[in-house]
Amino acid sequence: MSGSGRERTINMGAGPCTLPTTILETAAQGLLDYEGTGMGVVELSHRSQEFQELNERAQRDIRRLLRVPEGFEVLFMQGGGLAQFSCVVMNLVNQFRLANQTHKDDEVVVDYLVTGSWSLKASKEAARLGCRVNVVADGRSGSSDGSSAFRAIPRPADWRLSPADDPKKLRPAFLYYCDNETVDGVEFPSPGFPLEALPGPYLDNVPLVVDMSSNILTRQIPLSLWNHIGILFAGAQKNLGPAGLTLVLVRKNLIPHNLDLAVPFGGLRVPDLWCYKHSVDHRSLYNTPPMFSIYVASLVLADLVTRGGVEAVELINAQKSRAVYHAIDSSLGFYRNTIPHDARSRINIVFNCQAGPPMEDLFVHEADSCYGIKQIKGHRSVGGIRVSLYNAVSLDQVNTLCTFMLEFAARHR
Amino acid sequence: MSGSGRERTINMGAGPCTLPTTILETAAQGLLDYEGTGMGVVELSHRSQEFQELNERAQRDIRRLLRVPEGFEVLFMQGGGLAQFSCVVMNLVNQFRLANQTHKDDEVVVDYLVTGSWSLKASKEAARLGCRVNVVADGRSGSSDGSSAFRAIPRPADWRLSPADDPKKLRPAFLYYCDNETVDGVEFPSPGFPLEALPGPYLDNVPLVVDMSSNILTRQIPLSLWNHIGILFAGAQKNLGPAGLTLVLVRKNLIPHNLDLAVPFGGLRVPDLWCYKHSVDHRSLYNTPPMFSIYVASLVLADLVTRGGVEAVELINAQKSRAVYHAIDSSLGFYRNTIPHDARSRINIVFNCQAGPPMEDLFVHEADSCYGIKQIKGHRSVGGIRVSLYNAVSLDQVNTLCTFMLEFAARHR
Repeated sequence: MSGSGRERTINMGAGPCTLPTTILETAAQGLLDYEGTGMGVVELSHRSQEFQELNERAQRDIRRLLRVPEGFEVLFMQGGGLAQFSCVVMNLVNQFRLANQTHKDDEVVVDYLVTGSWSLKASKEAARLGCRVNVVADGRSGSSDGSSAFRAIPRPADWRLSPADDPKKLRPAFLYYCDNETVDGVEFPSPGFPLEALPGPYLDNVPLVVDMSSNILTRQIPLSLWNHIGILFAGAQKNLGPAGLTLVLVRKNLIPHNLDLAVPFGGLRVPDLWCYKHSVDHRSLYNTPPMFSIYVASLVLADLVTRGGVEAVELINAQKSRAVYHAIDSSLGFYRNTIPHDARSRINIVFNCQAGPPMEDLFVHEADSCYGIKQIKGHRSVGGIRVSLYNAVSLDQVNTLCTFMLEFAARHR
Repeated sequence: MSGSGRERTINMGAGPCTLPTTILETAAQGLLDYEGTGMGVVELSHRSQEFQELNERAQRDIRRLLRVPEGFEVLFMQGGGLAQFSCVVMNLVNQFRLANQTHKDDEVVVDYLVTGSWSLKASKEAARLGCRVNVVADGRSGSSDGSSAFRAIPRPADWRLSPADDPKKLRPAFLYYCDNETVDGVEFPSPGFPLEALPGPYLDNVPLVVDMSSNILTRQIPLSLWNHIGILFAGAQKNLGPAGLTLVLVRKNLIPHNLDLAVPFGGLRVPDLWCYKHSVDHRSLYNTPPMFSIYVASLVLADLVTRGGVEAVELINAQKSRAVYHAIDSSLGFYRNTIPHDARSRINIVFNCQAGPPMEDLFVHEADSCYGIKQIKGHRSVGGIRVSLYNAVSLDQVNTLCTFMLEFAARHR
C-alpha cells in the first residue's frame, strides 16, 4: 500500500510537510473503519464518545509533550496561524481594554518583534485592526549587507520596548514574536531567549505571544518561559498533522469571559468562532472541528511520546541541522547562508548558490531526479533553496541531502 | 481494507456523515501517494501544481453541478457554517455601509427568516455584531401546538419584511435564511420558494443569503434563484466531504474591495482571513487550506458528475425521504412527525415515538444492534430520533431502515 514511489521520496517541503509513513498507513485504515466502529473517523459524530476521547487524548499529549502548565488551556481551532494573527489581537486587546477600562485608542499599544515575513505580516494585521503597533525591532534594519531581507535577530540592546512599568502609562497589551521564521530561516537562538533579552520589569508585566507554527515540538519549552507566555500558537501542517488545524495554548487568566463587554470601551466586535472562551467552554468542539487533522495529529503525538518525547527529537533535530549547515559552510562559498550562527533556523534552512539562480534551479532539479528530494525551492518571496527538517524528516534523509550537496558542488564548482 | 464492520454499517448521522466507501478507498491511497508523486496529498505544498489543479477542478465541478453563474465566485474557506454567520455580516454590512456612505447604526437593517436552530443562531450573531436584526418570521410562533420547537415555515403573508423600496429609507442589507434546518427537520418546500414568497420589489433590491449546509447538492438550484442570491454557503461535512471546509459562493459585485474603507462609516474591522476579497484574489489559497477535506470533496464531486449530477440524486433523495415519511405516517401514530408536509425536510427526518423517550432509546439501540443503523439519536437540544439521508446514504439503506421501523412498531405497539 505504501507504494515504491513513496519509499524513494524525501520530502523536505516547508509545509504542508512530510508525515511518517506508518502514521499515514494507520490513518488510511482509520479513514475506512475507525477502531472497529464500522465508520471512518471523518464519518463519526464529533460529539460521539469515540471522537471526544480521541480529541481529549490529543490535547493531553500536547500538554505532556510541551509540559504545558495547568494555568493554560489547550485549544484546537481552525484557520491556521493567519487566523491567530487576528484572533490574538481581538481577544487580548479586548481583555486589556476591559481590565484597564480604557477606550483611548492611543493607550492600547502592542509590541511586535519583527524578525521575518510572518511576524511582519502579524504586525500589519494588528495595525489594520486598529492597534498602535510598536515595532520593537526589525530584522531587516539589522542586516549587515543593507538588503531588505530578514537575516538576523536585532541585538536586545537595540530593542525599543514600550514602557511597561511607568505608573503614568498603560503597559503594552502584549509582546509578539515568531520563534522560527519559516520563509527566512531565522530562529531564536533558544526558546528561552526572550527571558534573557527582556528586562525583568517588562517580563513581569507584559504577556508574550509566540508563533511557533514551524518549530513547535522540535525543541523543549523551558518552564521558565511558560511563566511569561500569554498565548502560544502553531498551525498543524509542519510538525503536527495535516493542514486545517491550529493549536492554541492560552493562559487562563487572559481569556475574556465576555468579549462583548469590551465594546463600550472601543473594543472590537469579535466573530463568535474567534472567542477563545467558546473553544474553552466546549473543549474545542464548539462547532464541527477539522476531524481528520485532529485524528492524524493524535497519531503523531502518540508516536512522539513513544519516541521519547520532544527531548529525544530535539537531539536528532540538532544533528540534522548541524549536518546541513556544515555542508554549506564547508563548501568554500559554493553554498551561502548569511544568517548569523545564533539566528540560524534548525528547521528551515535557506541558502543560495554563489553561481546564482540558474545553479539553484539545477540543484532543485537534480536533488529530485537523483535522490527524490522534493519541495526544496525557496519561498517565492525570497528565492534560493530551502530545506525543511521537520520532525518527520529522518537523520538518514538529511545525510542523503548532505551527500548530494557535496557531490553537486564538486560537479559544478 | 474496507473491513467487514464497515459493510454492515448504515451511518445515518446528521454530520459529519457517511461517505461512499469507494471514495474513502481512493482517499486512503492518495493519503500515502497522490497520483504517483511519491507524496501523500496532505504532504504536497498547497502551491504545488498538483494541488492547485485539484483545487481548481473541485471548484469547476461545483460550478457545473450547481449551475453557478459566471457572476459568482466559488470560494473554499475554513470555520464551517458558524464562521459564515459572522463572515457574511462582516463583509456584506461593510459593503452596504460603503455603498450607501452611511454610518448610522439604525440605518443598517438585516432581515432574518428564523425557521430553525441554525438560522436562529445566525440571527443572534448578526445582532451581537451590532446589526439591527429584523426577524421577518419565527417558526416557533407558527407552531400549532404552542410549543417552542421549530415546526413550520410561517406563511409568507405573515412575514414582516423591512421596507425595500421606500425612497426615504435604506433597504435591508440582505435577507438571510437557512434552506434546510438540520436540527429541526424543517426544509423550504422548494429551493425556489423565496421567489414565490417575496414581493417583486423586495426581491429586486435585497440580496438573499442562504445557508445550505445540510442540503447542498441534494436538489437543483433554479437559475431564477441565482439571480437573487448574494451569498450561498455550506459546511462540507454533510454532502461534500470531511469537516474543516466551507463552500462559499459569492456574487462578485457584492465583494468589498477594501473592507477597511468601511471603518470610517462605522464598519466592523474584519479579520484578514475573513475578507472574501483575499480568498478571491488567491483562488482560495490565501493561506494553507484544509487540503484533505478539499481532496475528498474533489472526489465526491467528480463521482457526483459521473452519477448524473444533482438532477439524478435529487430523484433518489425524493424516493428516500418519501419512504421514511410513509413509514412514519402509516404507523398509526406509533411514530410521529408533526411538521406540516410542505416543510418536512427530505434530508434530516426527525420523529418521536408516541410511547416517549424510553421507546426512542430502545429504537436507537435496536436499530444499531439489529441492522447496524448508527448515529440516529436526535440533536441534544430537541431529543427524539433523527435520520439523515444525505447523498451518500443509498435507497437500499433507507429501505432497510423502513423495514426495521415497521418491525419495531409491530413488536412494541
